[in-house]
Amino acid sequence: MKLDQDIALAMRLADAAGEAIRPHFRSGLTAERKSDASPVTIADQAAEEAMRRILKAEVPQDGIIGEEFGTEEGTSRRTWVLDPIDGTVSFIAGRPIFGTLIALLVDGWPVLGVIDQPILRERWVGASGAATTFNGQPVRTRACRELSEAMLATTGPQYFNDHEGEHFMALAARTDHKRMMMGGDCYNYGLLASGQLDLICEAGLKLHDWAALVPIVEGAGGTMCDWNGEPLHQQSEGHVLAIGDAARLEDVVEAMACHHH
Amino acid sequence: MKLDQDIALAMRLADAAGEAIRPHFRSGLTAERKSDASPVTIADQAAEEAMRRILKAEVPQDGIIGEEFGTEEGTSRRTWVLDPIDGTVSFIAGRPIFGTLIALLVDGWPVLGVIDQPILRERWVGASGAATTFNGQPVRTRACRELSEAMLATTGPQYFNDHEGEHFMALAARTDHKRMMMGGDCYNYGLLASGQLDLICEAGLKLHDWAALVPIVEGAGGTMCDWNGEPLHQQSEGHVLAIGDAARLEDVVEAMACHHH
Repeated sequence: MKLDQDIALAMRLADAAGEAIRPHFRSGLTAERKSDASPVTIADQAAEEAMRRILKAEVPQDGIIGEEFGTEEGTSRRTWVLDPIDGTVSFIAGRPIFGTLIALLVDGWPVLGVIDQPILRERWVGASGAATTFNGQPVRTRACRELSEAMLATTGPQYFNDHEGEHFMALAARTDHKRMMMGGDCYNYGLLASGQLDLICEAGLKLHDWAALVPIVEGAGGTMCDWNGEPLHQQSEGHVLAIGDAARLEDVVEAMACHHH
Repeated sequence: MKLDQDIALAMRLADAAGEAIRPHFRSGLTAERKSDASPVTIADQAAEEAMRRILKAEVPQDGIIGEEFGTEEGTSRRTWVLDPIDGTVSFIAGRPIFGTLIALLVDGWPVLGVIDQPILRERWVGASGAATTFNGQPVRTRACRELSEAMLATTGPQYFNDHEGEHFMALAARTDHKRMMMGGDCYNYGLLASGQLDLICEAGLKLHDWAALVPIVEGAGGTMCDWNGEPLHQQSEGHVLAIGDAARLEDVVEAMACHHH
């Protein structure tokens, strides 16, 4: 099966990114202010270069979209989307819940995704038609019978503008808001796939932030969509929902829209 | 030196708490809704019981204040303050950045503090007159020459009331707000002591949430105080600041007060 080869290739990309990133985590220099040559930039660029090198050697016909070095068109229907360090603020602060994101798009749609945490050596892998795995073991999202029982996460309210923040608060008010969790970036989507939390709501996500997450969340039984419940696409405004129990999709979209009434 | 014995005792407490907590982290049950016998409650209580058992055997004359089982008066000037799981939401979500907090108060003032992360096996220890250590190695807070360069963290805006939130936002606006970090509980104070971030501002902290943090932050060169810059005390309203570079104390307090003008 072709996808198995692609998964094996994605594993090699994640391994290479981890090798490039680990020496810079909590290095003395990490504590310095961000500048052109800050450790996070060095690690980000080294990891993306390492991944691009492997892709150019192995699948030169495939396109590449990377957070650091932009787009290289391919000649196949396939494009690799790379975010070497998702969660740069966590990385800078020395918090091991950032991640490397790797996605494979076919005709623009993500069919394979990896979240790799190189410090804890934790890895979620999702692929169309297969069960999502965490360090090789299958994982499932959990059931959530009532929105009022849902545990909601978001990386931070500072990423919402005022209007977006009102929609988010309308959703939060309908969930178990005492257990709302802030921070976490891609790591939250892995936890959702593992059945540890129920909902994630974010704004401002770019293709490289969300493409890898879709196969992981959906292969674990959840769903991802925009704030209107529509499938994500490259022209989305970055309004992303991840819902562990897909049966709660309508409740979530309705709760977010309530602000209008 | 007496404090060395107390540090050794605190290490045993942290070891025992970790043993009690680890089996419940990401256990299948963790994913269940919080109830009287939820895994976080079981882990919390088992860890505090294990610590109390050791204290009663070793230092029966000392008082104990625990987050789960309340206050037991002692006959010495000394009181141990225990928070078996600080960061319960992170624990429930399977995020390994919660911590066990252990403090020793003498005449009500914390002279010894431990932050222990039992999954990552990371431990910060601070004691009066000694350098704070992380896994046995001395750590220092970093310099922060300008408030505008400061990286600020808080566990989440949901823990502020409207009035408190306005003061927080007044501070955030004066810092490097693009790198503001949400989530993290006690783990952030360890990172601040290690020179990985500059400021933490929180509300609603109880004695068991902050007592252990004071010797750790101050032994690393930082300072902790309330939102007016006054020393923390048991009757504080839970308004806590941690400042890595103590030279920025006045700037921080002034920034937070600005909202009034």
